[in-house]
Amino acid sequence: MAVSETQSQTDLEFVRQLGQQLRVDSIRCSTAAGSGHPTSSMSAADLIAVLIARYLQYDWARPKDPNNDHLIYSKGHASPLCYAMFKAVGAITDAEMMTFRQFGSRLQGHPTPVIPWVDVATGSLGQGLPIAVGVAMAGQMLDKLPYHVWVLCGDSELAEGSIWEALDKASFYGLANLTAILDINRLGQRGETEYGWTTDVYRRRAEAFGCVPIVIDGHDITAIDRAFGGALSNTGKPTVIIAKTVKGKGFSEIENKEGWHGKALPPDMAERAIKELGGIRHLKVKTSKPESGTPAMKRKDGSATRAALKLPTYGKDDKVATRKAYGDALVALGALPDVVAMDGEVSNSTHADEFAKAYPDRFFEVYIAEQQLVALAVGMSARGYKPFASTFAAFFSRASDFIRMAGISQANIRLAGSHAGVEIGQDGPSQMALEDLASIRAIHGSTVLYPCDPNQAAKLTGLMADLDGISYLRTTRGAYPTLYGPSEAFKVGGSKVLRQSPKDRVTLVGAGVTVHNCLAAADALAKKQIAARVIDLYSVKPVDVKTLREAATVTKGRLVVVEDHYPEGGLGAAVLEAFAAEGGLKVAHLAVKGLPTSGKPDELMNAAGISARHVVAAATRLLAAR
Amino acid sequence: MAVSETQSQTDLEFVRQLGQQLRVDSIRCSTAAGSGHPTSSMSAADLIAVLIARYLQYDWARPKDPNNDHLIYSKGHASPLCYAMFKAVGAITDAEMMTFRQFGSRLQGHPTPVIPWVDVATGSLGQGLPIAVGVAMAGQMLDKLPYHVWVLCGDSELAEGSIWEALDKASFYGLANLTAILDINRLGQRGETEYGWTTDVYRRRAEAFGCVPIVIDGHDITAIDRAFGGALSNTGKPTVIIAKTVKGKGFSEIENKEGWHGKALPPDMAERAIKELGGIRHLKVKTSKPESGTPAMKRKDGSATRAALKLPTYGKDDKVATRKAYGDALVALGALPDVVAMDGEVSNSTHADEFAKAYPDRFFEVYIAEQQLVALAVGMSARGYKPFASTFAAFFSRASDFIRMAGISQANIRLAGSHAGVEIGQDGPSQMALEDLASIRAIHGSTVLYPCDPNQAAKLTGLMADLDGISYLRTTRGAYPTLYGPSEAFKVGGSKVLRQSPKDRVTLVGAGVTVHNCLAAADALAKKQIAARVIDLYSVKPVDVKTLREAATVTKGRLVVVEDHYPEGGLGAAVLEAFAAEGGLKVAHLAVKGLPTSGKPDELMNAAGISARHVVAAATRLLAAR
Repeated sequence: MAVSETQSQTDLEFVRQLGQQLRVDSIRCSTAAGSGHPTSSMSAADLIAVLIARYLQYDWARPKDPNNDHLIYSKGHASPLCYAMFKAVGAITDAEMMTFRQFGSRLQGHPTPVIPWVDVATGSLGQGLPIAVGVAMAGQMLDKLPYHVWVLCGDSELAEGSIWEALDKASFYGLANLTAILDINRLGQRGETEYGWTTDVYRRRAEAFGCVPIVIDGHDITAIDRAFGGALSNTGKPTVIIAKTVKGKGFSEIENKEGWHGKALPPDMAERAIKELGGIRHLKVKTSKPESGTPAMKRKDGSATRAALKLPTYGKDDKVATRKAYGDALVALGALPDVVAMDGEVSNSTHADEFAKAYPDRFFEVYIAEQQLVALAVGMSARGYKPFASTFAAFFSRASDFIRMAGISQANIRLAGSHAGVEIGQDGPSQMALEDLASIRAIHGSTVLYPCDPNQAAKLTGLMADLDGISYLRTTRGAYPTLYGPSEAFKVGGSKVLRQSPKDRVTLVGAGVTVHNCLAAADALAKKQIAARVIDLYSVKPVDVKTLREAATVTKGRLVVVEDHYPEGGLGAAVLEAFAAEGGLKVAHLAVKGLPTSGKPDELMNAAGISARHVVAAATRLLAAR
Repeated sequence: MAVSETQSQTDLEFVRQLGQQLRVDSIRCSTAAGSGHPTSSMSAADLIAVLIARYLQYDWARPKDPNNDHLIYSKGHASPLCYAMFKAVGAITDAEMMTFRQFGSRLQGHPTPVIPWVDVATGSLGQGLPIAVGVAMAGQMLDKLPYHVWVLCGDSELAEGSIWEALDKASFYGLANLTAILDINRLGQRGETEYGWTTDVYRRRAEAFGCVPIVIDGHDITAIDRAFGGALSNTGKPTVIIAKTVKGKGFSEIENKEGWHGKALPPDMAERAIKELGGIRHLKVKTSKPESGTPAMKRKDGSATRAALKLPTYGKDDKVATRKAYGDALVALGALPDVVAMDGEVSNSTHADEFAKAYPDRFFEVYIAEQQLVALAVGMSARGYKPFASTFAAFFSRASDFIRMAGISQANIRLAGSHAGVEIGQDGPSQMALEDLASIRAIHGSTVLYPCDPNQAAKLTGLMADLDGISYLRTTRGAYPTLYGPSEAFKVGGSKVLRQSPKDRVTLVGAGVTVHNCLAAADALAKKQIAARVIDLYSVKPVDVKTLREAATVTKGRLVVVEDHYPEGGLGAAVLEAFAAEGGLKVAHLAVKGLPTSGKPDELMNAAGISARHVVAAATRLLAAR
């Protein structure tokens, strides 16, 4: 028996019915798909019903309205509930809801922003809340709009450290506009969670992390209503609503039973469940629209501002580290009102501190919490800002899963990793990024840039401001000679030929610090009457195939590729992948083999086999093998 | 004026002098190096002085003694203090201490296990404590020995979520043999930490996370003494000692001053500091030796056990997923007493649950906390066990920095990542590992294996038990035909040629699920009278260059490489890197281009361009381009 009516939002009985509808629809769409998480949806259905009927302020027709509240499903596997909610608010039809998980449907197994009402992709647990912190910080500290950020979390994901990084930052920055709703349904994927229904553990932890905890029965509509009202009236602190719920709530055959995580009900069970839940309904919720308001911070810069943008330049005699040039350029980019920056307590090393001094209102100190660092960038990207996040390149690996998910979110974030490679010297291998080119190149939609001099670093930083997707700038600790003039132009997918002649017999390809080694090697080879072409392959992804191809043609396929990175997946792979279909290359690939130690940069590059003398030797061997 | 004498360990004045010596030596070695972290060492000097003089039970002559306590510098940048401690206990000479950070010295910028008294590499903050949890769990639950695990943490690293994952697991498993010593010196790298000296924040959090917090003045020798004594008498819970300290303590010019993080004192300042600290001393500490005892769990299996090891086998008609074969093989490996397993609350998907049922005492549920999952494996590896850690392949990216550091630790850990690639189907991209081959191949000392059938998966799992370093098994969600007989042999660095004839005109290279696509493609090509060689490149790192070379010779360099992974850094790169120096290949590289969605496995492989028909088309194009 189908019910179809629009009712007053203040009617608690309506909300109860709405909760049942969300359950029924979660079952219907997942049973149709043959997979999905109905039981994890059913536990949170009453929470979502109260939220959308009585608290959420959202104009479904205008998902980009800056005044909209945000609702992030950190427990992304509750996607049936999310999509059932979209139906209930009239954003999608019942028919579309039933395409759940089918090839070609935008209603994927876990929500992604291909759906206009979804801010970010979730599905890797413990990420929705940290990203929501970024959205809430944008609202409170940049937009200065009264929107509220609601996050639905599962209990299993509370074991992720990133959840505690998020609550820590939320309270540190006093994000009263953030409410985490914890759906404590006791059961994880393979049995009971760590703390089951011991909600007091979560209450004490949330409180210790500076939040206002509210413990409720997550199926008591009145209690939920009171808790959400309380969350909106809190000041100075985020709210954590700890809702004790029942997995599979509403269908007695599976309620609170193990073995039903992530399983669609077979059709016969689905039929019984829908009957027990009161049948199929088509209730429509009229969500409150947000009040109108204009963000305090402009997101779009006028073309006048952009034209006036003055990136720093450096003279031929300057010896300035690329990380310093990054900081200088970031300050210049501050003229664009939508540029924001964040750093993991190393801003005096990454030089993001220069931006912090120039634009304190748009700089965010995340302390040593790299997952939250990237999540903050993703959250602010969801609000239309242009975030630049920085830390040591090695420590972005702490946030690899967040970067991976940002790729799926198609977020526009910029990462600047300093202190790459053995070049850092004395600090030793723990501080050396030697895997970052491989891991970030493999991220969907990523751009990887690696400058060798300060003019180039500044220009590439400038380019990043306009790049979509995940862009990554790899910077170097030490200062090396300035190779380019202040008016030199660079582009994504570009490269620079630093030495060339028609008589070139071998091509030396470097990026970042190894460009300098290649130049020194070319000089040494010239003394042996061997003309060597030198390519600065600063755009590691995408690579400049055309320039490489020309060089390969001239030098009969002989390339020495040298990188301050482990041998796998980095600059060498980028070159080889670009030529995969063509063949014809004979590459001597110099990379960091073996585990580095401490020492002076020169000693370590020498030990790693990537110094100028190794380039010379490799080039000579290539020529001898002719 | 140098003091050199051996004194009673019970003399508190001796401990005070020892603390001053540790400060002086921290200054001396870092000033000699011209870099390092003397101030972060000075804050913790009194804590370490009391520990080594009065509590630590350690036989420095026998670092492998299973009864030794463990002392892990989670704040690895306090390496000057660590090395000054080694001098004080007589493990190294003063002269060696002065080689700090020099090329060739084992006393690197951050401690690594090239030093026999160091369990694991630290330097990436927030890792020492989670790893210590693994060491403590081994002690309490496997070895059943009374050793204590002491961890020195900094305050900046308390912002890392991994610290809270660690304390959560430490209390969940009741690790009373673990004491975290928090050196709250107020100052991080670039200024004050989040909470400065507000030790109450840490006290409340530690308590909420189930630990016994003890707040002390970290320079009050008596208070420290009482706190350590208290830690040893706690039962059922780990202890967290929150020590309020002063950065640079003991040298009035820099005490509690900003701008002195990670800076060696210039020689003149060092001279003044040493004077203020009472001059150079050469006090010797006689650390208590541990009581003797034998671990309950044997680490070495007899050869009889190994010979009797019966890995599972599967018949030609079985269709068994490789992840299931992993679980079956893990159960078989349980016959080796040193094999342990851990999983991130997905053991019913990774099939580690089979081991959990068979060997509950050697299985550890880490819940959804992948950083702690890998850290637990590293900690148990440090105690000589053979850990197998499993989760979805995509979620190992959450622990990338831990895997990176495990490479530097030269830890012997085994990772099994299930649900790789678009093959997983309906769950969508958040659950698909599509970057893992790139990122894990780039880890120092890693081995990467990717089976395509259950007999192979079981054999490779068996091989992993004897592998050093980081080994990674990539398994597939779905079940595919069994290709190999039960007696087929596999090896690291091996491959299998599944189709071959002298008339082969093109080579199809796959691994895992794409091997099946290659076979189907070879069948289709055969119908077009095109003989294709098929190589199962199950050892992705290292690759079998010899077999590839033979195939390339026969098929005139024409290779189709197809992988269920993004295009960068994976199987394609592995093949291309292997041939870098030789050239002569013309590779059609099929990989997952574009962002996948949800759908059936076949639909998604088709959309990604890695299905059999794409292999056929690529092979045909290669031949046409001849």
